[in-house]
Amino acid sequence: MKEYKIFIGGRFETTQEPLKIHNPYSGKHFASCYLAGKDELERAINAGIQAEQPMKDMPVFKKFESLVYISNRLKKERERLASVLAMESGKPIRYALGEIDRAAQTFLVAAEECKRLPGEYLSLDWTPPGAGKEGWVKFFPIGLVAGIAPFNFPMNLAVHKIAPAMAAGNPIILKPSRSTPLSVLELAAIMNETDFPEGSVSILPMDRDAGNQLVEDPRFKMLTFTGSPEVGWKMKREAGKKKVILELGGNAGVIVSESAAIDLAVDRCLVGGFAYSGQVCIHAQRIYVHEKIWEVFTEQFLHKVRQLKAGDPLDPATEVSVMIDRENAERVDAWVREAVNDGARILTGGKKKESFYEPTVLTQTQSSMKVCALEVFGPVVILEPISDFDSGIDAVNTSRYGLQAGVFTNDLSEMNRAFEILEVGGVIVNDVPTFRVDHMPYGGIRDSGFGREGLKYTIREMMEPKLLVKNK
Amino acid sequence: MKEYKIFIGGRFETTQEPLKIHNPYSGKHFASCYLAGKDELERAINAGIQAEQPMKDMPVFKKFESLVYISNRLKKERERLASVLAMESGKPIRYALGEIDRAAQTFLVAAEECKRLPGEYLSLDWTPPGAGKEGWVKFFPIGLVAGIAPFNFPMNLAVHKIAPAMAAGNPIILKPSRSTPLSVLELAAIMNETDFPEGSVSILPMDRDAGNQLVEDPRFKMLTFTGSPEVGWKMKREAGKKKVILELGGNAGVIVSESAAIDLAVDRCLVGGFAYSGQVCIHAQRIYVHEKIWEVFTEQFLHKVRQLKAGDPLDPATEVSVMIDRENAERVDAWVREAVNDGARILTGGKKKESFYEPTVLTQTQSSMKVCALEVFGPVVILEPISDFDSGIDAVNTSRYGLQAGVFTNDLSEMNRAFEILEVGGVIVNDVPTFRVDHMPYGGIRDSGFGREGLKYTIREMMEPKLLVKNK
Amino acid sequence: MKEYKIFIGGRFETTQEPLKIHNPYSGKHFASCYLAGKDELERAINAGIQAEQPMKDMPVFKKFESLVYISNRLKKERERLASVLAMESGKPIRYALGEIDRAAQTFLVAAEECKRLPGEYLSLDWTPPGAGKEGWVKFFPIGLVAGIAPFNFPMNLAVHKIAPAMAAGNPIILKPSRSTPLSVLELAAIMNETDFPEGSVSILPMDRDAGNQLVEDPRFKMLTFTGSPEVGWKMKREAGKKKVILELGGNAGVIVSESAAIDLAVDRCLVGGFAYSGQVCIHAQRIYVHEKIWEVFTEQFLHKVRQLKAGDPLDPATEVSVMIDRENAERVDAWVREAVNDGARILTGGKKKESFYEPTVLTQTQSSMKVCALEVFGPVVILEPISDFDSGIDAVNTSRYGLQAGVFTNDLSEMNRAFEILEVGGVIVNDVPTFRVDHMPYGGIRDSGFGREGLKYTIREMMEPKLLVKNK
Amino acid sequence: MKEYKIFIGGRFETTQEPLKIHNPYSGKHFASCYLAGKDELERAINAGIQAEQPMKDMPVFKKFESLVYISNRLKKERERLASVLAMESGKPIRYALGEIDRAAQTFLVAAEECKRLPGEYLSLDWTPPGAGKEGWVKFFPIGLVAGIAPFNFPMNLAVHKIAPAMAAGNPIILKPSRSTPLSVLELAAIMNETDFPEGSVSILPMDRDAGNQLVEDPRFKMLTFTGSPEVGWKMKREAGKKKVILELGGNAGVIVSESAAIDLAVDRCLVGGFAYSGQVCIHAQRIYVHEKIWEVFTEQFLHKVRQLKAGDPLDPATEVSVMIDRENAERVDAWVREAVNDGARILTGGKKKESFYEPTVLTQTQSSMKVCALEVFGPVVILEPISDFDSGIDAVNTSRYGLQAGVFTNDLSEMNRAFEILEVGGVIVNDVPTFRVDHMPYGGIRDSGFGREGLKYTIREMMEPKLLVKNK
Repeated sequence: MKEYKIFIGGRFETTQEPLKIHNPYSGKHFASCYLAGKDELERAINAGIQAEQPMKDMPVFKKFESLVYISNRLKKERERLASVLAMESGKPIRYALGEIDRAAQTFLVAAEECKRLPGEYLSLDWTPPGAGKEGWVKFFPIGLVAGIAPFNFPMNLAVHKIAPAMAAGNPIILKPSRSTPLSVLELAAIMNETDFPEGSVSILPMDRDAGNQLVEDPRFKMLTFTGSPEVGWKMKREAGKKKVILELGGNAGVIVSESAAIDLAVDRCLVGGFAYSGQVCIHAQRIYVHEKIWEVFTEQFLHKVRQLKAGDPLDPATEVSVMIDRENAERVDAWVREAVNDGARILTGGKKKESFYEPTVLTQTQSSMKVCALEVFGPVVILEPISDFDSGIDAVNTSRYGLQAGVFTNDLSEMNRAFEILEVGGVIVNDVPTFRVDHMPYGGIRDSGFGREGLKYTIREMMEPKLLVKNK
Repeated sequence: MKEYKIFIGGRFETTQEPLKIHNPYSGKHFASCYLAGKDELERAINAGIQAEQPMKDMPVFKKFESLVYISNRLKKERERLASVLAMESGKPIRYALGEIDRAAQTFLVAAEECKRLPGEYLSLDWTPPGAGKEGWVKFFPIGLVAGIAPFNFPMNLAVHKIAPAMAAGNPIILKPSRSTPLSVLELAAIMNETDFPEGSVSILPMDRDAGNQLVEDPRFKMLTFTGSPEVGWKMKREAGKKKVILELGGNAGVIVSESAAIDLAVDRCLVGGFAYSGQVCIHAQRIYVHEKIWEVFTEQFLHKVRQLKAGDPLDPATEVSVMIDRENAERVDAWVREAVNDGARILTGGKKKESFYEPTVLTQTQSSMKVCALEVFGPVVILEPISDFDSGIDAVNTSRYGLQAGVFTNDLSEMNRAFEILEVGGVIVNDVPTFRVDHMPYGGIRDSGFGREGLKYTIREMMEPKLLVKNK
Repeated sequence: MKEYKIFIGGRFETTQEPLKIHNPYSGKHFASCYLAGKDELERAINAGIQAEQPMKDMPVFKKFESLVYISNRLKKERERLASVLAMESGKPIRYALGEIDRAAQTFLVAAEECKRLPGEYLSLDWTPPGAGKEGWVKFFPIGLVAGIAPFNFPMNLAVHKIAPAMAAGNPIILKPSRSTPLSVLELAAIMNETDFPEGSVSILPMDRDAGNQLVEDPRFKMLTFTGSPEVGWKMKREAGKKKVILELGGNAGVIVSESAAIDLAVDRCLVGGFAYSGQVCIHAQRIYVHEKIWEVFTEQFLHKVRQLKAGDPLDPATEVSVMIDRENAERVDAWVREAVNDGARILTGGKKKESFYEPTVLTQTQSSMKVCALEVFGPVVILEPISDFDSGIDAVNTSRYGLQAGVFTNDLSEMNRAFEILEVGGVIVNDVPTFRVDHMPYGGIRDSGFGREGLKYTIREMMEPKLLVKNK
Repeated sequence: MKEYKIFIGGRFETTQEPLKIHNPYSGKHFASCYLAGKDELERAINAGIQAEQPMKDMPVFKKFESLVYISNRLKKERERLASVLAMESGKPIRYALGEIDRAAQTFLVAAEECKRLPGEYLSLDWTPPGAGKEGWVKFFPIGLVAGIAPFNFPMNLAVHKIAPAMAAGNPIILKPSRSTPLSVLELAAIMNETDFPEGSVSILPMDRDAGNQLVEDPRFKMLTFTGSPEVGWKMKREAGKKKVILELGGNAGVIVSESAAIDLAVDRCLVGGFAYSGQVCIHAQRIYVHEKIWEVFTEQFLHKVRQLKAGDPLDPATEVSVMIDRENAERVDAWVREAVNDGARILTGGKKKESFYEPTVLTQTQSSMKVCALEVFGPVVILEPISDFDSGIDAVNTSRYGLQAGVFTNDLSEMNRAFEILEVGGVIVNDVPTFRVDHMPYGGIRDSGFGREGLKYTIREMMEPKLLVKNK
């Protein structure tokens, strides 16, 4: 069985607390790792603080070369890394490969962006007190960053914290999910081969105490968290003086207009609804279809949902597999049963087998049901007819969340209204809310988050402007 | 009769060559002015060069205050100035008032933009030779500018050269059209009350020799010309080492899609087609209407064209009036008759009365006819049915010009195609190509021009970047 | 005695809780006002929420006109408003006039910036999943804002919250200091004459409960606070999900290099050290002078400090006057005495007369003394020799604060080191840290603040980006 | 003997006109190539026009991959390519290797910039006519580009035209110098392996007629030329309607202030003055040294100049070698003799041996002498004392050229004055004017050029903005 050591200040170490890693599909304990406590965290913090000045002083060409090196190594080892990722997370290999590719792209863009850190020129003589003076603004690294990443994209969502921190010149301590620390520890080995100073990045799964310290310790200048809304908002309150970025979830909606290309809408909703069993922050959870095309859409959609191929994540043919653990499958099952009890109708799916939950489509739901109102984070989609496009906008907006929304339409004025009125971070026209490319600004409003990721945007958040006022 | 002196280096002067100004509607000689020759130009050039350093040294707050002052004075005297403009140009007073308002806006935006001259920060250590260095870019005024303005917007098109030159810190010598120098000489009196140094702006109608010198004299660092394509492109060849901006004309097209709001399209095409008798660079000359709505559109459009109220430009009810002179009316008449001889059909209009030419709509034209292929610069519109939207794109693109195009549609994919494929400087969705607000980037490709106007854009063209490389 | 009503949702109202306003110089109760409680706040909140949509829908030209109108009215009434401000705050009239001028400038720049809200274009096809797509980002108003302003710049620091909120399209409820609500209520009357919808701005001094609600109520989407570090950082913890901007204080430092222009340094340090009795966030509290020029500098500086003219704030000759209240004068006195007890030496000043405290210069201090380590917020300056420039950098950085720093030098490499190494939001070369023009990015790091003010910067913080992904 | 075919529309071809390539050092004819005439050019033009649409349609990821591929191949084959370059140009191998590295960097940056083509958002409702509308600006490729490259950096100056054209989506036809076409034809073979469509790039040395057609043919939308001022400015006049970028030469100046680090100044002036025998556009031709350090500087400088190692360009130890041909060596010799006749004094050098010219330093020159006033483009430097820094600024500005200037100083106010007053495109502080990294904006004012290179800047020049006005 393979042993994975945790990564502290440039060294791979073991601790007193072993951590067993299971394959969610087979249930087998296939690798071992370690949990860090306060001692390990303290050493990582110290190493990070030691790295602040040398990281700030790294010339761009060294940062660039190192980040490109990491990107290239990820590309070269994509097969091996994807299978580690599939095993720890139960993610079908086709999606695991895509995630490694995206992590490589995320590092590549970070490399490019470290050349393009922002700077500004200001004339200051807009009033007589500024006469003869001019201003220049440069951005400086904010300091040590604490990053907390979730299980569902164990590699790329960690990389969305690590890569911009490195590009900005900030050391970072990353806490992966206890279930899925392996792929990102593989990444640690690659990063360790570069010119970044020791302590630039530490990666350690943690016990609860150490995890709390990540949030509260004032030596961290920023906390960047991806995970559930409840945990995230609580952290914001406890974070003290540090900056906080929260990438939380939602119950993303889709509107399919009368003018939509139906085939496209069906195909994309299939992916948005069931990829990685809906365990995706921008899972297409609520689909609102114009009543004029409701029947055609529903028929095609259900037909394709029923054909989704379930199986072993390592099998290239597999399209859906188990959920991350049995608890989550049970939670989803309970929510669906609650909805049905309250009047919802199952169009397909609705059965649980251990930690596997069938791709499920519900209709006749009400907005107060958990499957509508909360983040289902499972392979469940609700599908409802709407009498006109603007009802769809209202329905999507009836939510405490606001991450992304999808709008299938060829009507210009519908696109305009969707963009102006939908209360979300991103409106995706003719695609599902699940659409994300790694350099775009990404993040939610309302309860879905705080701040934006996407390399340039995260880097900007991870830096402080400093103004120089001088004579000219 | 009012005498207008020309404006040289902060002084109003007379010359040996008087210039009579006529009202194109009444034909009456109502004001007198003067023509500058080489001597006057020489003095203006010297005054301009003397002003370069003090203009460069003006603090922003002084430039701002002066430009705002000019803007406010234009607003305060709009009635008086508009009537001068209407009299010299034959432009209906409703449009003349609008032009003064726009000139005030142009100066206001110039004032705002002089606070926001561009500047850039560059990290330079992308390779080892740049290690330890950083770059800052500031923009400096280019130097003395020569501006040549046309008769059709005698105030605002002159202001589009003067105001950005002042904002950028460049002296300018402006040559108005011989027919319409009065309103801009009124402006000179206002500018003369500000803190800008003498010589910052000179305004002088010129004889041919002096006009040529504007183009050829190497002491001018930029030539900015608005006028006809033939003259403009010839100037580019003769301009020597200076920068050149050309704002020329075109035969702008409109596409009305099946999905368009017909009433809106009709109303806007009426304005785009006949405002100031089509003597507008972005006159809506060619209108292509989807065959499914062709009949409805045509009926409504012709009905409204026939109701346009012709008359004295000073009468507030007047919608169309005379052309700038009889020669132009005759040229337009000849072009229409040529088209009819070659098979075109007159739907309405087609008659000339001295320098008045009736609002005219033609159909069954061919793209080689002068009324299609050249810039008609008169109250003539061609109206043709199209079988689908993409034929409309092709028709608009069948032109040596490319200034702006109007597209009436509510179809998202049509908008996208129009924007990607139309070979123009601006695509105006759900409005006529005649749409222009003063801060937007404005200018043509193909034979329609070279460079862009619009305050921020002109200012940028009127400045040279200078890079500072320093240690950090 | 003049009565000032508070301003709620477009109406001036009284409450059950009268609030007496005293002139700190004469001690006289010269005006009456009212304190708002939870009821009044609730009505202001509702009015604000009602105003969200109409403010978002205001076209730019209406916002611009209204903001310019306010700016012009402030300029026109500067004498009257400055005297209200001087009476409520004890600020010498020369500085009070300057503050009204700056508030006018702040509204003017806000007007200009509302035309220039940010927007971005993104190509999305950096990887195959983005093929055929493009991204546009627009920024939307964040929603209702809570603003809390301090006594020391009762007008302009309130305006730095109100004006950007209006420009961004956000309603705002502003809580002025209880001691100094009058000038900003005068402003309310001016704002009430514009086209902004009722509820756009409410201005109400509050009791403690209502004040807490400003921080905690989730209907506010942002809290922007200027005041003391202790209060500010506590608010951040209690602010829930909202965004927070904190503009706190510091103990700003100045370095005077051997290469400095001594006269300039002396004159600017005089203003930076004693304007408004040092009750300024960027008060020049700690001055470090190169030992080679220490004697000359000290002699000149003390000479000028002793000549500062104390007196009635309404007397135009007055340079220094009373502090805001007796408590503060006593606190400053205690800190000075503590320093002296621990070894510091008074070079001039050091006496208290009721709420007046003499301009005071200390030397031989230690960095742990309150007069060094904390924000003195009074007319006290510490003056110390340094053996070289870099010791000055170290001394300035020995602080928990980091707002701005002043550096008098003509040495390029000293400027570079100061900019790279000083841990502050702004490095002011050849001027005191007290330098601020209203459009520059302003704010501190370390314990001095969170986020930046300065119109463009605040507006950006007060808006949420929304991404549109569409086919191209 | 190796035969190099020319590259037309994706094919390597021979022509009727063979072209012999000589090694300037040995004089040996070591390779053969071909000259293109009008027929070959016509085919290249047609292939280019065919490539316009497919290049415009290439997704970013394909452009990026191809440009990175080229960059990587250049890095991999740097030794081989550098030796080809050294042989055709006589450039010492140490500099030839550097040039290949820079060409690789130029392609890399072009790859990065093709992801970041500009785009803008504009609110349009600054006045009522724009109400309800918004503007988006995208930039589109300008069309077929003609590029003309010089002998002195046969690879990288060609790449500065080719790489941005490809990144912008423009086909380009490049004419290398007849003496040095080989290295860039090697590049053609590498580019031919990418996904760029055939016709994207053609590379052909040309006879005079074909060369003229590059300038005059209206099917080219842009001409970008690097070469001599005389030829460049003539081309501008003959270029018709196309855009023109001119990168011409100069007689770049250096100022060494009293406050400078002398060792650094000496070392950098050695490289700036004699690298590639001064055959560099930004050759440090005129050095002005403060009289207080004149003696020390001169002694050190002359000592090092005399130690420069001359020899075979292929020898890694060689620092200076032959000039490009005997004609140029003779021209330089004549200029030096003319200067000496008119009173200049040779401090070192001054001898010619066939096409080798000794590193030469002159003093007591006058600004009218050819060695001062014109571009010497040879290993000749003039060295003059100045009584103060501002005399140095005046001396540098006494020139018809204005490319870059070097300023060695540690005085802040000297840096400021140099940046504000020097009439050049770039002011290099504490380095020679010869400093260039490939992504910085590069180009001259006055007679030194027109427009800027540097990837982002060239790409911007090679694109046309198009405005979309739409309802929001």
